[in-house]
Formats: sequence, structure tokens, C-alpha cells
Amino acid sequence: MREEDFYEKTLHREMIFKGRVIEVAVDEVVLADGTQAQRELVFHHGAVGIVPVTSENNIILVKQFRKPIERTLVEIPAGKIEKNEHNPIEVARRELEEETGLGCQSLEEIFDVALSPGFSNERMIIYLATGLVQIEQPKGQDEDERIELLEVTLDEAKAMITSKEINDSKTIMAIQYLELNMK
Amino acid sequence: MREEDFYEKTLHREMIFKGRVIEVAVDEVVLADGTQAQRELVFHHGAVGIVPVTSENNIILVKQFRKPIERTLVEIPAGKIEKNEHNPIEVARRELEEETGLGCQSLEEIFDVALSPGFSNERMIIYLATGLVQIEQPKGQDEDERIELLEVTLDEAKAMITSKEINDSKTIMAIQYLELNMK
Repeated sequence: MREEDFYEKTLHREMIFKGRVIEVAVDEVVLADGTQAQRELVFHHGAVGIVPVTSENNIILVKQFRKPIERTLVEIPAGKIEKNEHNPIEVARRELEEETGLGCQSLEEIFDVALSPGFSNERMIIYLATGLVQIEQPKGQDEDERIELLEVTLDEAKAMITSKEINDSKTIMAIQYLELNMK
Repeated sequence: MREEDFYEKTLHREMIFKGRVIEVAVDEVVLADGTQAQRELVFHHGAVGIVPVTSENNIILVKQFRKPIERTLVEIPAGKIEKNEHNPIEVARRELEEETGLGCQSLEEIFDVALSPGFSNERMIIYLATGLVQIEQPKGQDEDERIELLEVTLDEAKAMITSKEINDSKTIMAIQYLELNMK
């Protein structure tokens, strides 16, 4: 098919919700062959993830409660890009400092991905952070975040995927990246 | 921290939207130390992804338009679990047939993950499908889906990640899995 044969044109958009994190809309769309359909859409301003790797090749992970699933998850540090922010690298440095108290000498983009494109436009840029340094008086965590840090070896991280203690997709993608690329 | 120190108790839930695919709510929560916060939540009934690998070790991918991001993506076949469905393996067989026209002799669960746990409870179970067989008269695609099939080698898939032609997280996670596990 040509690219235009895939296109879904919006006939009408109903805005349902404008929150601080997400906006929700329902679009009436028409496909190239005239078929009409409805699409439920969640708009998000995007996010960054950081894979902090120490000089001993250990990985820093964070454990936090995730209200949508009503339990804690072990994940790479990550955070939302706020509406007034336009430089994801700066967001990554801020989130790394807030969540782990660490700065880094190098931030290398390793992924720029869609997380759940069936209904959401959320995009996440993931950086490998190396040359980690403890910041003396780091910016604290967000007032409504409670985060615990874990430092694990790559083998421990792999075992946590196998045991499903790690079951977050961005975190698995990051650990597999390290497995494929770390010497 | 103990598990209960992470917990966020809902004081009040406002239901914002009940759609066919998602439901949206805003919760007022209280953290263990008494801090109150607001959480915007998207509830989804879950999904399956399928990684179809041919006898030549090629991967079958699908290209389709994704309205939230207004462009086409190349992804592993995937689909929603409907509200009346309780057996994800059956959903995986159906989606594989509808999207690719293929059946399979083996479906092996390789991941069971959260996709975007900051705001959504969407969970995806991903299966490796092998022993692929062409179904003579397969169930067709959903009336409002337009899908194109691609068959690529693992090296081609890896190159498509590097070139960002593939930039969907579940698909990258699946290709990395094959890279780490296929002989």
C-alpha cells in the first residue's frame, strides 16, 4: 500500500478530558476507502528514561508504587517531559538527579520509542548514563513520589526478568540492550 | 521501605470516561506519610503481542496506521483482549490469524509486561509463535484495520531498529529477545 492508503483522516474530534498528565479525545475518522471508525486517543507530552550504569557495570533501578496497577514496579529511572520543557536531555539529567541523587558525565540516546501506540501518543527517549557521580545536595524527589533505589549486576537484572520481578517493558528493553552491547 | 510504605490509598475516584477501548479516572490518593496527590489513570483490558518466526528464522511484522501518532508503525502483530475474553492464548491465535492469515503449532509466552505504568494499567502478554502454517480461509482483519505484512530476517529487523524504521517498544523488546535467544 502507498503511505496515503493507510491514512485516517479525522472528521470530528471530541475532547473528553484535559488533565495535568494526559488529554483524552475521541476521533471520528475515515479510512482511505471511505470506511468510518472511532478512535479513542490519549495524548501525553512524552517522557524520558535513563539507564544509569556504574563503573562496575552495575545498573541503578528504582522501585515505586504505580497507582494504575496498584502495586510497586522495579523500573529504570524515568519521568515526564513537562509542557514547558523542550530539551529531553535536560529532563533526563533532572530525573536522574531527583530519583537517584546522581549526576553523569555522559548521556547517550539509545532508544526513541512509542510505548503504547494503539491508543496513546506517548513517546519515550531512553538514555544510557555513564560516568555517574554522587551529587552533594541533589534536588529531591517530587513531593508525591516515594522511590527506593536498587543497584544490581547485569546477571541479577536478567534473573529479575526471568522471575518477573522486573516486568516493565522499557526496563526489559534497556536490560536486553545492555546484555547485547556491554562487554 | 516496607511494601505498605509505598501504598497509595484512593480517597476518591472520579470516573471521567468509559469508552470501548479505555476508561479514564482521576483518583485523589493519600500516601503512607499522609501526603495527598492526584493520579490520572487510564484503564485498558490488556493486550497480546505475537512474534511469528518462520522455519527460515524470518520474522513476520505488520505495518499499520496509528492514529495517536498520525503515522504508520512497523510492529509485531498485536491486539486487544476484549472485555468478554479471558484466555490470552486464544486471543493471540485469533490476532495472528486475522492480521497475518497464519496459524501456528506452538505459542510460547516470552513476556508479560506493563507498557506505560505511569498512567495506564495496560498489560501485554507476548508469545513466540513457531510452526507457522498458512490458513486456507483465514478470518479477515477487523473492518476498520488496514494492515500490510513484512517478512524480514533478524539482521534486517536489527537494521530497522538502528535506522528507527522500527521504533515501537514491544517490537524492539521482541527482536532483542530473538537476538539473545535464537541460534
